[in-house]
Amino acid sequence: MKRYEALAEDIAQSIRTGVMKLGDRLPSVRQAGASRAVSASTVFQAYYLLEARGLIRARERSGYYVIAGARSALPEIDNASLPTPESTEVDVSELVFDILASAQNRDVVPFGSAFPSPLLFPFARLAKSMAASIQKMDPWSTVDDLTPGNPTLRRQIALRYLADGMHVHTDDIVITNGALEALSLCLHTVARPGDSVIIESPTFYGALQALEGLGLKAIQVATHPREGIDLAQLALALERHKPRACWLMTNFQNPLGGLMSDEKKQALVALLAEHAVPLIEDDVYGELYFGGRRPLPAKAFDKAGLVMHCSSFSKCLAPGYRVGWAAPGKFAGAVARLKLSRTLSASAPAQGAIADYLAKGGYDRHLRQLRHALSVQQTAMLQAVARYFPRGTKATRPAGGYFVWVELPGQVDVLQIQRSALSLGISVAPGPMFSAERKFLNCLRLNYGHPWDELHEAAMATLGRIIAANGAMVE
Amino acid sequence: MKRYEALAEDIAQSIRTGVMKLGDRLPSVRQAGASRAVSASTVFQAYYLLEARGLIRARERSGYYVIAGARSALPEIDNASLPTPESTEVDVSELVFDILASAQNRDVVPFGSAFPSPLLFPFARLAKSMAASIQKMDPWSTVDDLTPGNPTLRRQIALRYLADGMHVHTDDIVITNGALEALSLCLHTVARPGDSVIIESPTFYGALQALEGLGLKAIQVATHPREGIDLAQLALALERHKPRACWLMTNFQNPLGGLMSDEKKQALVALLAEHAVPLIEDDVYGELYFGGRRPLPAKAFDKAGLVMHCSSFSKCLAPGYRVGWAAPGKFAGAVARLKLSRTLSASAPAQGAIADYLAKGGYDRHLRQLRHALSVQQTAMLQAVARYFPRGTKATRPAGGYFVWVELPGQVDVLQIQRSALSLGISVAPGPMFSAERKFLNCLRLNYGHPWDELHEAAMATLGRIIAANGAMVE
Repeated sequence: MKRYEALAEDIAQSIRTGVMKLGDRLPSVRQAGASRAVSASTVFQAYYLLEARGLIRARERSGYYVIAGARSALPEIDNASLPTPESTEVDVSELVFDILASAQNRDVVPFGSAFPSPLLFPFARLAKSMAASIQKMDPWSTVDDLTPGNPTLRRQIALRYLADGMHVHTDDIVITNGALEALSLCLHTVARPGDSVIIESPTFYGALQALEGLGLKAIQVATHPREGIDLAQLALALERHKPRACWLMTNFQNPLGGLMSDEKKQALVALLAEHAVPLIEDDVYGELYFGGRRPLPAKAFDKAGLVMHCSSFSKCLAPGYRVGWAAPGKFAGAVARLKLSRTLSASAPAQGAIADYLAKGGYDRHLRQLRHALSVQQTAMLQAVARYFPRGTKATRPAGGYFVWVELPGQVDVLQIQRSALSLGISVAPGPMFSAERKFLNCLRLNYGHPWDELHEAAMATLGRIIAANGAMVE
Repeated sequence: MKRYEALAEDIAQSIRTGVMKLGDRLPSVRQAGASRAVSASTVFQAYYLLEARGLIRARERSGYYVIAGARSALPEIDNASLPTPESTEVDVSELVFDILASAQNRDVVPFGSAFPSPLLFPFARLAKSMAASIQKMDPWSTVDDLTPGNPTLRRQIALRYLADGMHVHTDDIVITNGALEALSLCLHTVARPGDSVIIESPTFYGALQALEGLGLKAIQVATHPREGIDLAQLALALERHKPRACWLMTNFQNPLGGLMSDEKKQALVALLAEHAVPLIEDDVYGELYFGGRRPLPAKAFDKAGLVMHCSSFSKCLAPGYRVGWAAPGKFAGAVARLKLSRTLSASAPAQGAIADYLAKGGYDRHLRQLRHALSVQQTAMLQAVARYFPRGTKATRPAGGYFVWVELPGQVDVLQIQRSALSLGISVAPGPMFSAERKFLNCLRLNYGHPWDELHEAAMATLGRIIAANGAMVE
């Protein structure tokens, strides 16, 4: 164990045992270095690790705070899933659509929603950028700037890659109608009906729907709620199934919230390259980190051009604008052609507005505010889970994004809980939405992307009662 | 033959034989009625038929003019295609992409372009609508107005259907990223890999690419350049191949420009309903008619909910905004779900801007100007074909849209002509782009969607020389 790891474990122990409590401020990096006789850089690394583990969190200009309670109050989920090693036909779309449609109502408490509150986004500033850019829009750009898309926007995206130390060429970026289209295009580019594709378990239902739509088989690989996909299991699946692609989320995986370490990402990319299997990397939550810096995507370690990195502005800047992109490595040309033949291009005004916004600056300031809001809301959500859900409930404690994954004790049917909750005006996302075989019948994904208020608090209390009434064990 | 048909044939004869010449003004409806001793309504019906046949055209407030020359100068293509009756695997994408990419250069004379000149569209007024609507955009609408899309826009579209006497419910309209996505979603909704789909011959290459992308087989049915798909051949193909869908254009078919009569559309819908085969109706040019009224889509005759009507604002109002729609009859729910899972929704700002524009009025005035510009440009294009292309060249004379289809005499290779022309800065769309088997090697599609100028005139002269040099027979 390295020195910073030992220090981190020491602090984690204090938190688990309740020595340090939720909300406590940690010593400053300088103080901690002095008192423990280690360098400031060691302390910083330890704090960063604890942040990535979701135990502490930085608040701007005021230091680090404990954001996790003692383990006894709300145990963290610490075991990976155990999916079947067989490939599976996917048939989950109807369930997903029914549940999404039921949650699409402003009067419903949106714990089942896929989106953060729209009130967290700078719509007024975006409107200014839209008004400014639409005035200047060259009519010819509607012909010239078809896919791969607005060149100014693609350059801005390339610059953000560069700021993270990644060299992605402007020409290798394809603007899409949100990340969802980017992912679907990448999948369609590398896989044909009947092929097998590796996914996480549990996984984003959009991946399941995309596989289902293309007639692909799912190979679900065990995924740890904190550390992501199990590489040993992945290696076995690669040998056994000869898949055409691997689709996963390395940063704040949906629904678990796991964050793969840089080392693991590097090993993942190397493993897939050995088998010449493309990685479709869904990185839509990468900017929503609570730690000290943006976690790199696996794309950062790609040498073979096999990583197809997909992201968007929908979750971090401009919901509804439907502007995302793919950086599909050596598949860039093929993805662009597929995009051209399927939807021609993304909406020109939306691309222009976002390009203008990014060029004017202010995106990073907005992101800091957004991350802060989400991290505060996560704390409130986890506290409410601890307060209202039956004893024995476990939860993840992601270091970013806006979802927690909750595992209920005993024999429960979350689909029944979902229906009961909805009848009382509360939506939740039941576990089976995230599984090709509709497993995870004792799990829920809860959205904390909305400013916390009494309504949310009361809804969590109600939800706790519904869960208890539906058989989850209460001591 | 009805009275108005006899009158129309009489006038057509005068035009073909050169008694009435290009540019001549026809007698007013009142004059003609008096001199021929028929009712004004009979004259009006005759003139409308001649307009639909592309022989005469109305100019606002100044009467009807002959727009076709005597047949000897530039014969009209009058025979339907003869495609193979077998189903065909499609493999045309590479050719299409190469040719589109080569034409995607502002310095190239755009006879091969798929788009009209962007200068024909009201971008300044759209920008005002965008600025107005984006100011008022409710952040929550980015969550509430996912697919099927902005309710105000859908209502505006439903109102336009209603103005044409069609009852399409707002809830049955799905907003898409342009018509291309609408068509692709409809196709994906009703057909699975390996299925057969009926298309026209020649056909829009986008249909070929969509079939290719989904691994579908094409059944090409003979299509008349003026009157559209051959219903007798279609009936045979339906019996023989049991297709899962029929994809075609009833109004100003791309590339031929054919316009099916109302009677024929009605018969088409009835025939397909007999076989319970859905019709995917691509109607993107329907608003670009040169006649007296918008030709109805086949959708107008749909009783079984089997017609999936697709259109957009890209060719008639707002290029680059990428706002189209499907009105997919009984498949509306399934199309909406596929849309949700593939691209979630169309861009909210673009939808809002177009909804605002439509509500404020002025769309029909813009459309009248656009149609007038296109009809004038068609005349210039056809005159240039007659002037510069070899004797024996035939062309279509569509009553709307912005393409003519040209058939060259003798043994020629239009792919070679396309390359020679491009090396001299002129793009054309060669016939094989529009065929699953890359047929029509003696045909070209020419775009007249750009204001005519000396550059265009000179380019047509050059093109005529290239064609002659490449072996098209010259007397």
